Amino acid sequence: MPGEFDLIRRYFDSISGDHPSVQLGIGDDCALLSTSPNTELAISVDTLVEGVHFLPDIHPEHLAWRLIASSVSDLAAMGASPRWLTLACTLNEPSEAWLAMFSKGLAEACQFYSLVLIGGDTTSGRCQVFTAQVHGEVPSGMALKRSGAKVGDAIVVSGTLGDSCAGLAMLTDELEGESEYLLGRYYRPTARLELGKSLRGIANAAVDVSDGLLADLNHLLTASGVGAELCVEALPLSSALCEFAPESAEKWALSGGEDFELCFTLPQDRVPELEPMSERLDLPLTVVGTITDDREIALLKLGEPMARPAILGFNHFGNENE
Amino acid sequence: MPGEFDLIRRYFDSISGDHPSVQLGIGDDCALLSTSPNTELAISVDTLVEGVHFLPDIHPEHLAWRLIASSVSDLAAMGASPRWLTLACTLNEPSEAWLAMFSKGLAEACQFYSLVLIGGDTTSGRCQVFTAQVHGEVPSGMALKRSGAKVGDAIVVSGTLGDSCAGLAMLTDELEGESEYLLGRYYRPTARLELGKSLRGIANAAVDVSDGLLADLNHLLTASGVGAELCVEALPLSSALCEFAPESAEKWALSGGEDFELCFTLPQDRVPELEPMSERLDLPLTVVGTITDDREIALLKLGEPMARPAILGFNHFGNENE
Repeated sequence: MPGEFDLIRRYFDSISGDHPSVQLGIGDDCALLSTSPNTELAISVDTLVEGVHFLPDIHPEHLAWRLIASSVSDLAAMGASPRWLTLACTLNEPSEAWLAMFSKGLAEACQFYSLVLIGGDTTSGRCQVFTAQVHGEVPSGMALKRSGAKVGDAIVVSGTLGDSCAGLAMLTDELEGESEYLLGRYYRPTARLELGKSLRGIANAAVDVSDGLLADLNHLLTASGVGAELCVEALPLSSALCEFAPESAEKWALSGGEDFELCFTLPQDRVPELEPMSERLDLPLTVVGTITDDREIALLKLGEPMARPAILGFNHFGNENE
Repeated sequence: MPGEFDLIRRYFDSISGDHPSVQLGIGDDCALLSTSPNTELAISVDTLVEGVHFLPDIHPEHLAWRLIASSVSDLAAMGASPRWLTLACTLNEPSEAWLAMFSKGLAEACQFYSLVLIGGDTTSGRCQVFTAQVHGEVPSGMALKRSGAKVGDAIVVSGTLGDSCAGLAMLTDELEGESEYLLGRYYRPTARLELGKSLRGIANAAVDVSDGLLADLNHLLTASGVGAELCVEALPLSSALCEFAPESAEKWALSGGEDFELCFTLPQDRVPELEPMSERLDLPLTVVGTITDDREIALLKLGEPMARPAILGFNHFGNENE
């Protein structure tokens, strides 16, 4: 293996692009950044561990995209704009080919999300561990939090749910068939940044769907001290999910993680703003329920109470951000 | 094991102290921070891997201190003041006793260095990996960089060198005897924050001694495009190092890592400022050489050229910051 400096220089320096905010990037004891006036800094840390959060044989480009998208999704959920990335990689004797593909995916994902790589640490270990920290900016006082949901608010989700879970099930042969769409939703999830920014001043509370709708909505409800009624038949499902997994679709939409859609609440009188927003963003925005004062989630199907699926959501020890 | 939320809440929430700059700490998709006007943000990431950077049986309190001190040392080398910490822990079935001790050490180290824990991620894995990211602030344009050394500058090191390496050698039975002082220098190194701040506007370049003096000075020289003459007999050695390891003292002072002292350069006409600074900080500051235009390090002993030790410094793949 080449020395640490060679390795980092060769594969990561090209990604550490210039930006006026970066006074000093990779190569000193610290990176130095200029933050924008009248903004708050939004910071999120995500770790992906081999065998826990990704399969050992994942293509390194997909790994890089998933790592960045899952991190950026937390910025989206706050209504923040991505700025800077640091990356700590613990690697187990990677080949140069692996590094080249990983850094290619990383460079593409950084460009897609307007992130500048400013630093990190590369270490060797018996298992592969990747920790990405993303830093965004949001106008002061405008961040979307989990804690602002009000009784009577509409509950909305973006895109479609359960697709990523179905894609993973195909990869692990739990689900028959092969759908490029569903695999793509697993491999290259899209953080909903434009939606997050559009929701500033409109949504009362927001969270990204990383652990599954029920689990993440539950975080939002707990932080807000409220409950919810969810209309299961309203859940947005992709045609691919309904085609390949008709029996599991509803369960995965409720409990499957890693779709990285946003779940947010807003006052009923602002619901009419969703349709033009959806058209502008080319992204479905679906009302799936209402905030209640019950402090729990009531599932309704065609108006009747429904038993909750046994699996509330991912609870691998841990995968919680912040 | 308790669920991820319980675990994080129980052991890390108490550390996530209040600070006016923290608009939102642990518990949402992102932390939200207010940065100070007219400052730059200094960021450094350090990963410690079990079996590579620490022994598997290290006391969790020592592990926490080493993790934080090694990260904060990078802020010291830039002349920055510590503000916020994030921590990504990949754990292998830790006991609650382990977690309690680790979080105790973490809380103490955070308090000692005025760091506020604002977020992180806790995951399970086959090996233990800890990534700390520290965020500091430094008045705009005042950060100490590696790149500013000028030909003729004096080269100065703080404290004493080689102690941490000797402490580790005692732990691994490579060195006979037991010295609380040397073990303490390994277990609880002290980041030289006050020195770093005092050097703003005085030092031309600075680096912290994490990989060993020769290796770290070499980084500084490369960044500055200059060389150095080092007077080996001038290296500051502790009496404990000379007592327990008389034969290795010089080698470890040159090549042993993790003392987390600062190595900096300053114009000769400012050297007289070192003595009052040393007294004020109660920290030895020793001139050990001169910056040259040779682009390499010449070692001198009593004025005569000396062969360079075979080991230039740590180069575990990788351990480089930024």
